[in-house]
Amino acid sequence: MDVRTAELKEPITVAEYLFRRLHEVGVRSVHGLPGDYNLVALDYLTNSGLRWVGNCNELNAGYAADGYARVKGIAAIVTTFGVGELSTLNAIAGAYSEYVPVVHIVGYPSTVSQRNGMLLHHTLGNGDYTVFSTMSRPISCAVSLLNDPMDAASLIDHAISQCYLHSRPVYISLPTDIVEKKIEGARLKKSLDLEYPPNEGEKEDYVVAVVLKYLREATNPVILVDACAIRHRALKETHELIKTSGLPTFVTPMGKGAVDETLPNYGGVYAGSGSNAGVRKAVESSDLVLTIGSIKSDFNTAGFTYRISDLNSVDLHSSFVRVRYSEYPGVRMNGVLHKVALHLGQLKVKAGPVPNNTIPDAESKSSDPTITQAWFWPRLGQWLCENDVVITETGTANFGIWETRFPKGVTAISQVLWGSIGYATGACQGAALAAKEVGINRTILFTGDGSFQLTAQEVSTMLKLRLNPIIFIICNKGYTIERYIHGWDAGYNDVQEWDYKGIPAVFGAAKGQAQTYVVKSKEDVEKLFTDKDFSAPMSDKLRFVELHIPRDDAPEALKSTAEAAAKRNAE
Amino acid sequence: MDVRTAELKEPITVAEYLFRRLHEVGVRSVHGLPGDYNLVALDYLTNSGLRWVGNCNELNAGYAADGYARVKGIAAIVTTFGVGELSTLNAIAGAYSEYVPVVHIVGYPSTVSQRNGMLLHHTLGNGDYTVFSTMSRPISCAVSLLNDPMDAASLIDHAISQCYLHSRPVYISLPTDIVEKKIEGARLKKSLDLEYPPNEGEKEDYVVAVVLKYLREATNPVILVDACAIRHRALKETHELIKTSGLPTFVTPMGKGAVDETLPNYGGVYAGSGSNAGVRKAVESSDLVLTIGSIKSDFNTAGFTYRISDLNSVDLHSSFVRVRYSEYPGVRMNGVLHKVALHLGQLKVKAGPVPNNTIPDAESKSSDPTITQAWFWPRLGQWLCENDVVITETGTANFGIWETRFPKGVTAISQVLWGSIGYATGACQGAALAAKEVGINRTILFTGDGSFQLTAQEVSTMLKLRLNPIIFIICNKGYTIERYIHGWDAGYNDVQEWDYKGIPAVFGAAKGQAQTYVVKSKEDVEKLFTDKDFSAPMSDKLRFVELHIPRDDAPEALKSTAEAAAKRNAE
Ligand SMILES: Cc1ncc(C[n+]2csc(CCOP(=O)(O)OP(=O)(O)O)c2C)c(N)n1
Ligand SMILES: Cc1ncc(C[n+]2csc(CCOP(=O)(O)OP(=O)(O)O)c2C)c(N)n1
Ligand SMILES: [Mg+2]
Ligand SMILES: [Mg+2]
Repeated sequence: MDVRTAELKEPITVAEYLFRRLHEVGVRSVHGLPGDYNLVALDYLTNSGLRWVGNCNELNAGYAADGYARVKGIAAIVTTFGVGELSTLNAIAGAYSEYVPVVHIVGYPSTVSQRNGMLLHHTLGNGDYTVFSTMSRPISCAVSLLNDPMDAASLIDHAISQCYLHSRPVYISLPTDIVEKKIEGARLKKSLDLEYPPNEGEKEDYVVAVVLKYLREATNPVILVDACAIRHRALKETHELIKTSGLPTFVTPMGKGAVDETLPNYGGVYAGSGSNAGVRKAVESSDLVLTIGSIKSDFNTAGFTYRISDLNSVDLHSSFVRVRYSEYPGVRMNGVLHKVALHLGQLKVKAGPVPNNTIPDAESKSSDPTITQAWFWPRLGQWLCENDVVITETGTANFGIWETRFPKGVTAISQVLWGSIGYATGACQGAALAAKEVGINRTILFTGDGSFQLTAQEVSTMLKLRLNPIIFIICNKGYTIERYIHGWDAGYNDVQEWDYKGIPAVFGAAKGQAQTYVVKSKEDVEKLFTDKDFSAPMSDKLRFVELHIPRDDAPEALKSTAEAAAKRNAE
Repeated sequence: MDVRTAELKEPITVAEYLFRRLHEVGVRSVHGLPGDYNLVALDYLTNSGLRWVGNCNELNAGYAADGYARVKGIAAIVTTFGVGELSTLNAIAGAYSEYVPVVHIVGYPSTVSQRNGMLLHHTLGNGDYTVFSTMSRPISCAVSLLNDPMDAASLIDHAISQCYLHSRPVYISLPTDIVEKKIEGARLKKSLDLEYPPNEGEKEDYVVAVVLKYLREATNPVILVDACAIRHRALKETHELIKTSGLPTFVTPMGKGAVDETLPNYGGVYAGSGSNAGVRKAVESSDLVLTIGSIKSDFNTAGFTYRISDLNSVDLHSSFVRVRYSEYPGVRMNGVLHKVALHLGQLKVKAGPVPNNTIPDAESKSSDPTITQAWFWPRLGQWLCENDVVITETGTANFGIWETRFPKGVTAISQVLWGSIGYATGACQGAALAAKEVGINRTILFTGDGSFQLTAQEVSTMLKLRLNPIIFIICNKGYTIERYIHGWDAGYNDVQEWDYKGIPAVFGAAKGQAQTYVVKSKEDVEKLFTDKDFSAPMSDKLRFVELHIPRDDAPEALKSTAEAAAKRNAE
C-alpha cells in the first residue's frame, strides 16, 4: 500500500469503481470476450453485481450490447486491445449512427509497456499505442484513456454520463497495471448526474407558443414519431401529446415501436412512397406535420420520397426545434412536448386510417398455400403479444414489419440507418437477456437466411445463458433485398443452403432445450401460431423456425425503396 | 459516350481495369460480401478472369484473403461502405501487422451522394464520407479514393504496386457512379513494375564485406530466419546462404515454414527460453547469430527471452542491415544475402541439433492413452507430407507446432504477432482455395475449440467452393492458453460445448462431401494417420476432426510464454 492509498477513505480498485458505476446506471450483464489484457479486470465483475456474458466473437458481442441497450437503456462490452476492439468497430459504429448508448471497455497493455513502445502481441509492431483509440474516436462521444489512477474516477464518470446523455458509444481504455490500482471509493456515494439540463424557461415558452399557434391554425394536423424520440427518451412526453391531442399519429420505420399502436389515433407507418395509400394520403394532405425526433435517411423515407413541405412542418429534436423555416437551437423536445400537450386545448382533428392487421384481400382470397410477405406480416400482428420484443433484420423483414400493427408495449429493434446484416441475431442475444432481466417474456427475431450466416454462432450464447427467444429464419435462397437492387439471378446473391433447423443442436442445445420448426405453407404458419407451446410466454425452450418464403417475393415497401437505391447508385 | 470516351484508344470500365490489374499480379479469386454499393462492380469479375468467393461475413473474408495471400503472394477483398469495411478492419490490421499484401476494395456511394452529404444507409448520419477511409489509413500502406475517372487508373496502379512491394494492405474506394466510367485500357499493356529497386552497388558491396568479415571470424556462427524473410520475398537468397554455408539454421515461431526443414543443417525453432535445450544452447552459445527478417515481438521470442548479445548479431532486414551496433539504412537483405552466399568460402561450422519428430521419452514410454500436446506435435510431423499448407491458431496449436519438423515445401500460416483468434479458420478457406489454384494438395488446419467459435461459419464457404481441407478442432474445454495466463478455473475461460462434428452437415455439406472423426486417444490418432482415405492427397472430401486433449495440458513453450505475459501485464 503506497502513501496515496493510505489516504483513501474507502479504497477501491479502478476495475470495481468502473463496474459499480455501470451497475448504478442499470447494467447487469457485460458482453464481450476475454483476452490476456482484460482477464484480471473480469475478476471484479461478480463482486460489482455484474454477470459476464462471454460471446462467441466481438462483433456479435457489440451487436448484443446494442440490443441489450435498446431494451435496458445502456449496455457495456469488454474487449481486448487491438484484435478484440477492432472486431467490434462495426457494431460500435452502428450504435453511434443509431444513437445507442454502449460503454466500450478495452483491456490495454500496461502503461509501462505503452510508454516503452514494446513490441507486444496485438500491436501493429510499430510501438504506437494510440492508433486504435484514434480509430474509435469518430464513433465515440467520449474517449477516456485510464493511464493514471489520479484521474481514473473522473474519466470513468465522464465517459459513462456522456454515453447516457448523448445516447452514443464511449471508449474506455483499461491498462493491465491500472486495473487493481486503488482509488477513492467514497466518490461512489454521489450518483452520476444523468438529468438532461432543462431548457431555458423563457426560450422554451416562446417555442411552445409558436408551436401551439401553428397547431391551432392547422385544419388537419398529424404527428410523425421517429427514432430519436426513443433514443433521446422523449416517449413519455410524446404520448402525452398523442393522447391529449387525439391527432392522427404515424411512425417512421425507425420510429416503429415508439408509439402505443393500440391507441385509436395510431395510423401506421409513414415512409413517403413506401407507405400504404391511406397513410400516405393522410400525412401528405396534412397542413401541419409535427415530427418528433426525425432522421430523414434514405431507408427511413423509402428513398427520400417524403412529400411534406417545410412550410407545413414543425420538427422537434433533442437539441433544437424547427418551425417552418425558423430554427430554435438549444431547445430540447421533451420540455416543449410536455408544455404543448398541457396547453393544447381543442384542435381540429381529422380522423386518419386505422391499421388492424387485416390480410389484404388478394391474399386472403388466394388458395395458394405459399407463404407470401404480403400475407405474413399482418398475420404476425395478430399473433404478437403485449410487451414482446421484436427484432427485424435488414432485408425483407425490416420492410415487412411496417405492415404489422403491434400490441401495446412492444419494443421494436432494427437498424434502418446503419443496416449492418448479422446485427439482428447478435442483438437478439442481448435483447433477450435484457428482457429476462426486466421481466419481459418474449423476444422474437426475424432474420434472413443470408444475414443469419454472418453471426449464427450467437445462438450458442443464447443457449449457454439459457435464453429462450423465438427465432425465425426467413429462408428464401439468399439475398432477396439485394436482388431487388441489382443482380436478380447473380451468383453473388445466392448463399450456401444450410440445414438451419440443425443449428441449435450443433451449438450445444441440451436435450429439450430447443425446439425447431419447419414452416412451408400458410397452414403451417396457422398451426404454429395456434400451438400453445410455441407461443407460450414463459417457455423454457428456445424456439427456432425455418420460415420458407419464395426467393422472389418481397414487401411492397422494399420494392420501391430498392428501386430508389439502384437509381441513386447509378446517378 | 462523352467526348473524352471517344478519345480513348481501348475504352475499358474502371471496374474491369481494376480487376484486370488484380489478375495480372496473380489474383484469381476475390473474397468478400456483396452490398448495394458494390453489386454492379461484381458483374465485372468474371470477364476479368476472377472468381467471386462470397464469404459468410466480412471479418472471415478478410482472414481468408490473408490466408490466400500467404499462399499466392497477394489477395483481394471487396466489401461495402461502412458496415462491410469496418467488419473486416481487424483482419486488415492483422495483415498490416504481419506484412501480408491484401487489396481492400470498398464499394462507395456515388460521388454525387458523397458531395451532397446525403443521409444514406451505412453512414453515421452526419454526411461525412471520409470517416471510414480515415480509420483505414493507419492500417494501409496506400489509400486510393477513386472519385474521378481521370486519375482512377494511376491510383489503382499505385495502390496495387504499393501493396505488393510493401507487402501490406491497401484501400481502394470504388463509388457506384465510377464503376462503369470508361478509361484508357491500352495502359494495361504495360505491366506494373513490381521489382524491388536494387541496392546501391558500392554500398551493398561494403555491407557484404562487413558481414563476410564477421562471419569468417566467428567460431560457431548460426543463422536465424524470421517472418520478414518470407513476407519480403527473400527465401531464395536465404536458402542460397543456408546451403552454401552449411551453418546450423534455426527459425523463429513466425519464421516457421521459411526454411526447408529437411536440410541437414536445419536445427529447429529458436524462441529464447521457449526453445528446447539443444536449440537454446546452440543459438545462445554462438558468437555470431545472423538473423534474416527478424521481428522480435513478445510471442515470437517467448516473452523477450532472447539471450543474444547485439555484439554477436548481424541483422538483415528489408530496408536496412545492422552489424553489431553499426546500421546500414537503405540496404535490402536480398542482394546482400546473394552476394554473401556467393563469396562465402569455408566457414567454421559447428554442427547443431537435428530435430526429427521423435516423441519425447516420457511420452513414448507412458501407457496413458490420453492424447497429450507433447506427444501429438512430433507425431504430426511424421504424418505431414511435402508441400502441405499447415495453419495453426493462436492458442495451444501455435506453440505446439514448434515441436513439429516439417517435410520439404510446407507452407506454415499463423498469426504470432497479431494473434487474433478465429483467424485460422478464415485463413484456411483462403489458403485452401489458393492451394487448389497452384496445385497444392493438402491444406491442414489446427484450431482451438474456443477460437473456432469466432469464425466457424467459414466452413460453409469451404463447402460451397468444394474445398477439401483437413480440419482439426482441438477440443479442450475452452481457452487453455488464457488459463495459463490468468483465471485457471474462471468461468470466462470456458466455452459452450458444441457438437463440433455436426458442423459440416449443418453448413450444408452434400452427402459424401465431408467426413468427420472423433479422436480421443493416441490409438485413435494412430488409426487416423494410417487411414488412407483420411490422408489422401487428392481427397474429394472435407475432413473434420474433433481432437480431444485435456483442458489443462499445453505445450511447454506456451507455459513459459504465458508466464512472461502475465508478469508483464502486472508490472
Ligand atoms: C455487414 C453487411 N454486409 C453486407 C451488407 C449488404 N447487404 C444488405 S442486405 C443483404 C442481404 C440480406 O439477405 P437476407 O438476410 O437473406 O435477407 P432477405 O433475403 O430477407 O432480403 C446484404 C448482403 C450489409 N448490409 N451489411
Ligand atoms: C479476436 C480475439 N479475441 C480474443 C482474444 C484473446 N484470446 C487469445 S487466445 C484465446 C483463447 C483461445 O482458445 P482456444 O482456441 O480454445 O485455444 P487453446 O485452448 O488451444 O489454447 C483468447 C480468448 C484474441 N487473441 N483475439
Ligand atoms: Mg434471404
Ligand atoms: Mg481450447
